[in-house]
Amino acid sequence: MGEDSQATVLSGKQVAQDVRDKLKEHVEKLKNEFAGFAPNAIVQMPLDSDNNIDSDLVLDTISPDKDVDGLTTASAGRLSHGMLGRRLHALYTKWMHGTYPEIQGATAVVLGRSKIVGTPMAELLKWHHATVTTCHSRTVDLPAVTRTADILVVAIGRPEFVKQSWIKPGAVVIDCGINAIPDATKKSGSRLVGDVAYAEASKVASVITPVPGGVGPMTVAMLMQNTVISAQKAAAQMKVSKWNISYLPLELLEKVPSDIEVARAQTPKDIAELSKEIGLLGSEVDLYGKKKAKVSLSVLQRLVFQKDGKYVVVAGITPTPLGEGKSTTTIGLAQALGAHLKTNTFACVRQPSQGPTFGIKGGAAGGGYSQVIPMDEFNLHLTGDIHAITAANNLLAAQIDARMFHESTQTDKALYGRLVPNIKGVRQFSQIQVNRLKKLGIVETNPDKLSEEEITKFVRLNIDPATITWQRVMDTNDRFLRKITIGQSPTEKGNTRECQFDITVASEIMAILALTTSLSDMRERLGKMVVASDTSGNPVTAEDLGASGALTVLMKDAIQPNLMQTLEGTPVFVHAGPFANIAHGNSSILADKIALKLVGAEGFVVTEAGFGADIGMEKFFNIKCRYSGLVPNAVVLVATVRALKMHGGGPTVTPGVPLPPEYTKENLELVEGGFSNLRKQIENGRIFGIPVVVAINSFITDTEAELNLMKKLAIDAGAVDAVICNHWAKGGAGAVQLAEAVVAASNQPSDFKFLYNLNHPIEDKIRAIAQKIYGADDIEIQPEAQEQINRYRKQGFNDLPICMAKTHLSLTSDPSKKGAPTGFKIPVRDVRASVGAGFLYPLVGTKECGQVPRPPTLARGLQWLRRLTPK
Amino acid sequence: MGEDSQATVLSGKQVAQDVRDKLKEHVEKLKNEFAGFAPNAIVQMPLDSDNNIDSDLVLDTISPDKDVDGLTTASAGRLSHGMLGRRLHALYTKWMHGTYPEIQGATAVVLGRSKIVGTPMAELLKWHHATVTTCHSRTVDLPAVTRTADILVVAIGRPEFVKQSWIKPGAVVIDCGINAIPDATKKSGSRLVGDVAYAEASKVASVITPVPGGVGPMTVAMLMQNTVISAQKAAAQMKVSKWNISYLPLELLEKVPSDIEVARAQTPKDIAELSKEIGLLGSEVDLYGKKKAKVSLSVLQRLVFQKDGKYVVVAGITPTPLGEGKSTTTIGLAQALGAHLKTNTFACVRQPSQGPTFGIKGGAAGGGYSQVIPMDEFNLHLTGDIHAITAANNLLAAQIDARMFHESTQTDKALYGRLVPNIKGVRQFSQIQVNRLKKLGIVETNPDKLSEEEITKFVRLNIDPATITWQRVMDTNDRFLRKITIGQSPTEKGNTRECQFDITVASEIMAILALTTSLSDMRERLGKMVVASDTSGNPVTAEDLGASGALTVLMKDAIQPNLMQTLEGTPVFVHAGPFANIAHGNSSILADKIALKLVGAEGFVVTEAGFGADIGMEKFFNIKCRYSGLVPNAVVLVATVRALKMHGGGPTVTPGVPLPPEYTKENLELVEGGFSNLRKQIENGRIFGIPVVVAINSFITDTEAELNLMKKLAIDAGAVDAVICNHWAKGGAGAVQLAEAVVAASNQPSDFKFLYNLNHPIEDKIRAIAQKIYGADDIEIQPEAQEQINRYRKQGFNDLPICMAKTHLSLTSDPSKKGAPTGFKIPVRDVRASVGAGFLYPLVGTKECGQVPRPPTLARGLQWLRRLTPK
Repeated sequence: MGEDSQATVLSGKQVAQDVRDKLKEHVEKLKNEFAGFAPNAIVQMPLDSDNNIDSDLVLDTISPDKDVDGLTTASAGRLSHGMLGRRLHALYTKWMHGTYPEIQGATAVVLGRSKIVGTPMAELLKWHHATVTTCHSRTVDLPAVTRTADILVVAIGRPEFVKQSWIKPGAVVIDCGINAIPDATKKSGSRLVGDVAYAEASKVASVITPVPGGVGPMTVAMLMQNTVISAQKAAAQMKVSKWNISYLPLELLEKVPSDIEVARAQTPKDIAELSKEIGLLGSEVDLYGKKKAKVSLSVLQRLVFQKDGKYVVVAGITPTPLGEGKSTTTIGLAQALGAHLKTNTFACVRQPSQGPTFGIKGGAAGGGYSQVIPMDEFNLHLTGDIHAITAANNLLAAQIDARMFHESTQTDKALYGRLVPNIKGVRQFSQIQVNRLKKLGIVETNPDKLSEEEITKFVRLNIDPATITWQRVMDTNDRFLRKITIGQSPTEKGNTRECQFDITVASEIMAILALTTSLSDMRERLGKMVVASDTSGNPVTAEDLGASGALTVLMKDAIQPNLMQTLEGTPVFVHAGPFANIAHGNSSILADKIALKLVGAEGFVVTEAGFGADIGMEKFFNIKCRYSGLVPNAVVLVATVRALKMHGGGPTVTPGVPLPPEYTKENLELVEGGFSNLRKQIENGRIFGIPVVVAINSFITDTEAELNLMKKLAIDAGAVDAVICNHWAKGGAGAVQLAEAVVAASNQPSDFKFLYNLNHPIEDKIRAIAQKIYGADDIEIQPEAQEQINRYRKQGFNDLPICMAKTHLSLTSDPSKKGAPTGFKIPVRDVRASVGAGFLYPLVGTKECGQVPRPPTLARGLQWLRRLTPK
Repeated sequence: MGEDSQATVLSGKQVAQDVRDKLKEHVEKLKNEFAGFAPNAIVQMPLDSDNNIDSDLVLDTISPDKDVDGLTTASAGRLSHGMLGRRLHALYTKWMHGTYPEIQGATAVVLGRSKIVGTPMAELLKWHHATVTTCHSRTVDLPAVTRTADILVVAIGRPEFVKQSWIKPGAVVIDCGINAIPDATKKSGSRLVGDVAYAEASKVASVITPVPGGVGPMTVAMLMQNTVISAQKAAAQMKVSKWNISYLPLELLEKVPSDIEVARAQTPKDIAELSKEIGLLGSEVDLYGKKKAKVSLSVLQRLVFQKDGKYVVVAGITPTPLGEGKSTTTIGLAQALGAHLKTNTFACVRQPSQGPTFGIKGGAAGGGYSQVIPMDEFNLHLTGDIHAITAANNLLAAQIDARMFHESTQTDKALYGRLVPNIKGVRQFSQIQVNRLKKLGIVETNPDKLSEEEITKFVRLNIDPATITWQRVMDTNDRFLRKITIGQSPTEKGNTRECQFDITVASEIMAILALTTSLSDMRERLGKMVVASDTSGNPVTAEDLGASGALTVLMKDAIQPNLMQTLEGTPVFVHAGPFANIAHGNSSILADKIALKLVGAEGFVVTEAGFGADIGMEKFFNIKCRYSGLVPNAVVLVATVRALKMHGGGPTVTPGVPLPPEYTKENLELVEGGFSNLRKQIENGRIFGIPVVVAINSFITDTEAELNLMKKLAIDAGAVDAVICNHWAKGGAGAVQLAEAVVAASNQPSDFKFLYNLNHPIEDKIRAIAQKIYGADDIEIQPEAQEQINRYRKQGFNDLPICMAKTHLSLTSDPSKKGAPTGFKIPVRDVRASVGAGFLYPLVGTKECGQVPRPPTLARGLQWLRRLTPK
């Protein structure tokens, strides 16, 4: 505790670094133990009596927030700038206020300039308005200076150095010294004294602290107090408050440039900064470059007691083939709620497939001044989640064919040897294999003791090749892989079979990623995936193939949602992108859940449901909300004048072809005629007991009369509000009114209910959706579909929710039927199961689902990418 | 510049945040302009005369390293802990040393406690050993205090506040005040005065600074000086010095646990920390989670004047099927050079395919106590480079089939419309299309003015399906994709054809990633890739398909090397993993180049060449070094007693089967007999003019006599040294002697030369390799191969280097022939071209190359992954 400690700075650098490295490692370990929170710490000094160690290097290992001792250089800097706080403040001023009633204006002398006592003490006294003199070993005529002190603080490390004559009568003397001096009368041979000759000094001082028993115990008490304060601050991090977030101002151009030009004109914040702004801890964030990050599921644990924010789902009316701006509205609304109404707001969207990205559609990050940025990183690779799904999906596919091949060419014994190999004399079942033994009713768990019959049961899956439903996938639009024959190499000994490649986002693993709620849940779901039937008609699962562990490892990073930002700097989760036809078409439950915690009770999470409300929204409620347990507060239904006109009988709308004049000139009749579809979709929202706000996504060609007619009709039809918005052209500013309507709707009481009970017969569940949501008279189950339904019932899959595979271009199963048709039936052609994802999917259209989409149209499909080409 | 500035802290927080946000954005922009270096900055205060702004919030936007004004809280903290530096130091002490010769022991009084002047001034004087008193507005009887001062510093913001009577005769007075007072005689109506009544004070003071013209110009001068110092420090960052790196101590166990257990027992450093330690700037590093990062190619630009380090290539003798520990030696040697000899050392290794990872082999991160960690991240996904290659490769494959389909079903006019679409009335050729026009000899560049004939030429590639060499790829061992038929969906109208999936690492794009030297070079190479011939026999390239831009965008992140670390905390680049049979089997040129700059002239880069020295090393010299222009300093040749015994006639070695006793008992005869192979490989290194060090990778079963025999023979055969090492069991400590030998060898003069000139006939180049490296009598070119050679010569590809596709298990083309055979010929079955990667590859074996490898053996292949399964 001596002075002049900077004299030790240089020589001890290497030692100090070693100490610091070990300390850092230790702190990291502690952090892991304490769920990401760095513990409070003090450095007990001196560090080493033999080596000169640079204590600042070691001290600064401690985060200033956790520096209960107040000794890091950051704390020193704050103090010298008059930012008082922590131990020093508490310790000395409380005490002095009790002993010396008026520090202000007093003459204070501090003897010693160490970083531990002298320097901070002088600063404290100075900022409490004493006139402070700091003395030290080089001071000339010390007694003369100390005698001027009303308050004398001594911390110079010399036993009984300050004498009675040095002290002004009536002064307050604080003795911070602690020195051992020889004392033969003591057992230890020494005793402790201070820097002040206590016995004589106490005769003149009005107050003097003894040594030991003076400053020491007070220091301990104040350290404890600071630890409590620090714990309280850490506890506060468990609660969400209003974000201290910097928004990005938009420079709106009258003529909105192309999406990519708008996106590139804006400089996104570093994602590390955004993650701090929204209350994420460093340990909860894995950066992927500077603009993307993965967020740990541990946030859910840290904020387990935090009340969820308001949950808003964005759906749409039955769209034209051009889309009605659902993604754009999701982002625009989030920008309005966040950057304009200053509420904590998250948008949650799906990750797009790279396949269509190369096609005509371009990116899927929203549009105009309502986008997720950076657009290229959003559309390409992102953080590799889709690539991970491809890898996992195809590993399983390879396992299926390899297994069949090996079963067809090898003896039971040889197969057993491969499945349960003898490794250095030890043979052991894996956990997955133990599960399989259980499933087969085999009690024995010693691999060497299975009977021949049991071995046969164990090694043979007897997959029936005709029943294989598991397809290989690729995230590329490659139409020539839609139907292929595999196994034609002579090495495969004639085991050829027909199969297909699907697009990766159609993989059941993608649906699982979207619906899972934890890593262990994901593993369980991956194991439950049915890939085929065996020759006796029993389902064969990924678990039977022993693959669930491997698939989980491949997916362990993908399960973490990806953090990005909007053009206005508000946070976005991009996570999962399951197909909205054969799967449920909604972004991930985990992203929504984490976002709802992060925004806090007063905040908003805006999430998007794919395709028309009859598909994406119905599945959002009946499947996603069922698995998540979350209850939404409001539905935003996106509609356009253009779509209403189409439903009202306007001519066909085709991408790439200029719009017919009906769509660019005022036509109130078509708007009114087509309103039937919007009315039905409003009703569909209300069926679930949730208030519906209609977002009228306006285009330049829309007339005021058309827009106002639409607004009036929507409110008359039961929407709690209908708002004309232009976030495409104006960003969040164009959706402020919509945001206000959403806030109002979210505060309304809602009465959320599912459409059907899970334990109802499969047929009834399908019928409920067809009649109540689509407006059909009934369903027509074709024989093949009925057979499948019976099989699933028998296999124990009756109680899964229903995920209709229907066209999104009509409320019926016929894409050419517009408006809100009546008097039609829904033909159910087939029913399939995604047991791992957890739903049955009836096929009601004619189109093969999940197939690789049409390929890019020659070079045109590459134009979007070309614009991104680095120079 | 008044005192009590902390009084403004609270009220101005929001304003301050806005200022800070804008400042941050501005600093980011400046950083981009200055190649990642944050500029020096000062904050001109006061910030705003109307709003109270928290200046600390704004000040602390500046990095302490760039704080030439010394006013951030970090600078304040350092100063108060006695770490003097920067402006304040320079400014006042220089001055004072000139005016008041002995600060030590003087009585100094500072009037004012602002963070700008008063507080740092007091600290400075204190640490220059004056006895310092700080006064301020609350000080009682100011004149009495100031009269004690030998040195009086005044910075209180009141015009002519300090009078003559306040000053001790002979004192040094520094007046930091600057106040405007009314003065009717001046044009402006006011004049500037200091805080001291200059006229009267100068009568008693020995020295006094005038206002204006005193402190002000000095401040400017010192700011300039600090800016120069800061620029010098930034310039020093352009040079490489000895790394200040913390190594990770190993806790070696006597019985070495499994690779994954060893890997998991070590906690890696945060990769952000390692990247700082090796001199990378924050802007040059993109984190991918906490343990991996991508490093920007801009490092090459920043360090363009830095001399390269020593370049060491690790190769091996012709191996047994078990491998002789080349990767392990690469890592062990790097650990020894780095953590033990304390030189700046990088290891550069290949990224493994995920396919074999699921197979029996397990990871490829080294082994025992010489590994890259974390092992699971190394082996799975890494940062997605291989996934990017899969995406790019398959996009091109889909383009080929789609193009043929469209050409076969559409008119010239329709094709033209798709290729050069009319977008909002504008039709334009892309740059790629302009290039194609040039290639076709079409001068016209207005799309509307092409003649019909020209349009036909432009739109039709006329790909001959029988000549397509571009295959789809997948990073999964899926044997059933080795030969397939595609296009069987009715939508493809009968355009079926037979093709295959290769493993992704066999893609030419992977070879390009390994050989490219910049983004623009990569784009050019991607465009040059030949995918087929047209019906006239001309090559059709990716550029012809208009795909090079899109492929480049997909690969733009992959081109950046991936930074990881060894078990002992030394840096590793993991980048590219081309096949060593059809491609050149070496990690990337870019990783080596960046590493050579980062280690500096005294440092080492250890890079690995795949397979035996006759393959990987030959290609390293003749292909990789030719394209990189780098000259290696030493070859490390890895050999084992086991391999020598095999070459000496020992029984067959088979993975998964226990070794025959010849390999586990002493047998000097076999060692001596098999030395022929090692002798030939030593000679192969010497042919290129590079010193060869033999690394004898010792196993527990090797006897001392065997090892010593091997060492003697190797040195007799011309190795500059031969060292017995056990880095597998001991980590870097087990390779210290090897490292010392490598250092010595690297300091020897070398005389690097290529084996052949590029402009020699293809046949001669193949012959040179066969005769000089393999020891063959001659080559036998089969007719089909000769036809190909003639075709390539005609197409202008004669001058490419040669990449032999030969078994790695023998110096001959027959894997069963061991040792160093003579009197054999090398049959050349076929010759193919990777024009984009830039080499011709003769096929000399019988095996189809690049094919999807054998699949995982049932569930066994998943065991490695299972061990990683998160709970």
